[in-house]
Amino acid sequence: MNYTLAELASHTGARLNDASFSDLVIQAVAPVQTAKAGDISFFADPRYKKHLGDCHASAVILSEELAQGYKAAALISHNPYATYARVAALITPADMPASETHASAVIHESAKIGPGCYIGPNTVIEADVVIEADCYLAAGIYIGKASKVGRSTRINANVSIYHDCVIGQRNIIHSSAVIGADGFGFANDAGEWIKVPQTGGVRLGDDVEVGASTTIDRGAIDDTIIGNGVKLDNQIQIAHNVRIGEHTAIAGCSGVAGSAVIGKHCTIAGMCTIVGHIELVDHVHITAMSLITKSIKKPGSYSSGTAFEDTASWRKNSVRFKQLDVMSRRLHKLENKS
Amino acid sequence: MNYTLAELASHTGARLNDASFSDLVIQAVAPVQTAKAGDISFFADPRYKKHLGDCHASAVILSEELAQGYKAAALISHNPYATYARVAALITPADMPASETHASAVIHESAKIGPGCYIGPNTVIEADVVIEADCYLAAGIYIGKASKVGRSTRINANVSIYHDCVIGQRNIIHSSAVIGADGFGFANDAGEWIKVPQTGGVRLGDDVEVGASTTIDRGAIDDTIIGNGVKLDNQIQIAHNVRIGEHTAIAGCSGVAGSAVIGKHCTIAGMCTIVGHIELVDHVHITAMSLITKSIKKPGSYSSGTAFEDTASWRKNSVRFKQLDVMSRRLHKLENKS
Amino acid sequence: MNYTLAELASHTGARLNDASFSDLVIQAVAPVQTAKAGDISFFADPRYKKHLGDCHASAVILSEELAQGYKAAALISHNPYATYARVAALITPADMPASETHASAVIHESAKIGPGCYIGPNTVIEADVVIEADCYLAAGIYIGKASKVGRSTRINANVSIYHDCVIGQRNIIHSSAVIGADGFGFANDAGEWIKVPQTGGVRLGDDVEVGASTTIDRGAIDDTIIGNGVKLDNQIQIAHNVRIGEHTAIAGCSGVAGSAVIGKHCTIAGMCTIVGHIELVDHVHITAMSLITKSIKKPGSYSSGTAFEDTASWRKNSVRFKQLDVMSRRLHKLENKS
Repeated sequence: MNYTLAELASHTGARLNDASFSDLVIQAVAPVQTAKAGDISFFADPRYKKHLGDCHASAVILSEELAQGYKAAALISHNPYATYARVAALITPADMPASETHASAVIHESAKIGPGCYIGPNTVIEADVVIEADCYLAAGIYIGKASKVGRSTRINANVSIYHDCVIGQRNIIHSSAVIGADGFGFANDAGEWIKVPQTGGVRLGDDVEVGASTTIDRGAIDDTIIGNGVKLDNQIQIAHNVRIGEHTAIAGCSGVAGSAVIGKHCTIAGMCTIVGHIELVDHVHITAMSLITKSIKKPGSYSSGTAFEDTASWRKNSVRFKQLDVMSRRLHKLENKS
Repeated sequence: MNYTLAELASHTGARLNDASFSDLVIQAVAPVQTAKAGDISFFADPRYKKHLGDCHASAVILSEELAQGYKAAALISHNPYATYARVAALITPADMPASETHASAVIHESAKIGPGCYIGPNTVIEADVVIEADCYLAAGIYIGKASKVGRSTRINANVSIYHDCVIGQRNIIHSSAVIGADGFGFANDAGEWIKVPQTGGVRLGDDVEVGASTTIDRGAIDDTIIGNGVKLDNQIQIAHNVRIGEHTAIAGCSGVAGSAVIGKHCTIAGMCTIVGHIELVDHVHITAMSLITKSIKKPGSYSSGTAFEDTASWRKNSVRFKQLDVMSRRLHKLENKS
Repeated sequence: MNYTLAELASHTGARLNDASFSDLVIQAVAPVQTAKAGDISFFADPRYKKHLGDCHASAVILSEELAQGYKAAALISHNPYATYARVAALITPADMPASETHASAVIHESAKIGPGCYIGPNTVIEADVVIEADCYLAAGIYIGKASKVGRSTRINANVSIYHDCVIGQRNIIHSSAVIGADGFGFANDAGEWIKVPQTGGVRLGDDVEVGASTTIDRGAIDDTIIGNGVKLDNQIQIAHNVRIGEHTAIAGCSGVAGSAVIGKHCTIAGMCTIVGHIELVDHVHITAMSLITKSIKKPGSYSSGTAFEDTASWRKNSVRFKQLDVMSRRLHKLENKS
């Protein structure tokens, strides 16, 4: 899609640095290094100011600071990266085929499909499902009985949504994601595991993104709840009865165990483990591959693990780790002596 | 499904506290806090005794201890949580559609489908497959040549089972699980990887549950073997030729590397790594995010990793980890001096 | 498939120890312990020399060293395991059905399917896709607009490939893998996440293997690039704009964050985390469950984490970890005193 700079400014809330550039047409977004005429790029970091003159883009998105004295076409924004995101969304919108239900889709007669939806090949929609208007369902998707998908949601190929789940509006769900599988609930009886039926559901808020192969289990009795604006990367495991607050983002491969509660505006980096039945307040940030075993009551950044080193050194040090408590006592003893 | 308390007692082996409640009808299971008339709840923990009077359920499941002096309707059990699991399974049974093979399913003429099966839309069943009686195959499932699925097994949408795999009876396999993909076997020849054909299969025992997006690779020559009653949560990776003993449970995101052998009645928490070619005896328990690098010959609980803390402190301490061996030697030197 | 020993020698570059065995027919590969007449086994490790006499295989694959004085039929190779891999590939080739496009496949009229391809049931191929000759697409696969699949590539059931991705020749892609889902890119604006459209693609080289449930995200603007001969195990997450050098192998459950660059001939064990925007040179090896937070400029083996121990001891030691920096200072103070 092509837009003039004036249109981009108007749609994104950015300010055009000079009205004489209003009619300049932007056709694509491109990285600073490879941008050419017709492209728009963005500069957020003042350290890159020196490269500004080398960029061949027709226009750039700049902070107020970088824009000072800049004479070529620019959109000025207090948050150039966010403005870039909005500009890119306008210029390269997600593909939306014409409204159609493919002949190979298997849709129960009691399901309701809103206007403007694209229901792709081999999609299976069970009884009493509701798909609101303007949804995109790529292909090979399964939606179980009585689940509901909110308006303008995009579901990619081979996603499975079990029965009695609620997906909000404007969600994006990536391929192989599974929503509503049984939580991992078993009672141990004389050494054998008795399955505890998982009778709750899953509720995703609006503007949620669920990454490829991410799994969100249904609740044991109550629901598993994901707040508005939550962003989940690929291969994340969300166990039964977890609750995640609005606008929290979790990076790839992390796992959240049963009944954990995560606050709003948290960020959890990749490969983290949040154990079950704990609570993290709002604005908690966890660095990569950390294990969080207790509730966190104070906003801030938290970590666990060790720094990496060459394997030979690591072998020596990791053995010493097992002597740490004894070392500490020995140190204490020496201190008392001296 | 509705049951009288007498029926529930009879089906679950629990004892009704007073025969006058025999005909009381139970319609649903519910949490203690929100239960209402017609519901049944359970109390296992003596600490919650004080809340017993506030519960509005028609009946509760209690331990002998909690039941003492309790006058309202109760099922008494030595294991209230297991009794709850059995009661919930009666009242909220898994959905089982009428026996049918959907017109869109693609079933090879040599495949054998037992009586009572539901074979959902777009399921693909290759040559020489055997599906025993009363199985439920949701939709979009692939079952490769000559694989076998035992009686009363439930396979959810978009599961892939490769050729020559054996699934036991009463299994539950969740969406996007993959059983029988090639093990990760390569011979390095002058820097390039030569694929080693994976000619073994996968054998799952009876009463196994396989979580969403869990992957169980086929063996290199011999089979990968999962014992009866094993429960695997979501996103678990089981490599080629692993053997897992009966009634072991593994939580989400854990990985078991090639040819590892895990005993019976073990529990492995989430995000653990069991390296290849080691053996864990029966009744081993591993806490979350632990790395197990050697065989474990003694039952018990094992752990690795560090406790989490604020990131600034962690940075300092994790750097010191790399000095641990040197610190230990320095400490020893001081001790010799003093 | 049956081969004579002379044929196997000729196809694999191994040397037959005695021409009188040339016509001996081999029908199967088998482990040393269970091999019988008609089978071929391999011995690589000199420690097992003593078992050589007990093996009932018709022939064995041996190193020069082990072959000294061996009188029965043997293929001699400088790399017996690689020779075994090649022999097994001949004897047990991957199943390739006759060329066919199943009636239930949904293929856009603008897509081009090369000769010799098998396109299985319920596969969906969008506009402008190119599938080169001799590909195998099992069933339930989705291939988005304008993507390309190179010659002789095998794609297993329920794989999803998004639009504008390039898969090389002779790739093997396992079930539930997802290639080309959106990278995890968001700009934070006043606490809310604004999606950054992911307009790059994914390019896989030739001879790449992608494990079950592995996810490889499309680039933000430029492509995500996987080199020739790279082998990825199951449940690996490759984030946007990652580049992986030729002949690198990554084991199950590992994650590589955005824009990380991994060299050639690296090995990364299971459950590792490589953070974003760092670079690992060629010939770097990472042991299981390590967290790599900085660029590695020197070939070698690297590790992080701690050794496991019984949980009671671990609790004590992991608490002490949080005192490490203070312990170090206390030690230093004592040293100054003494």
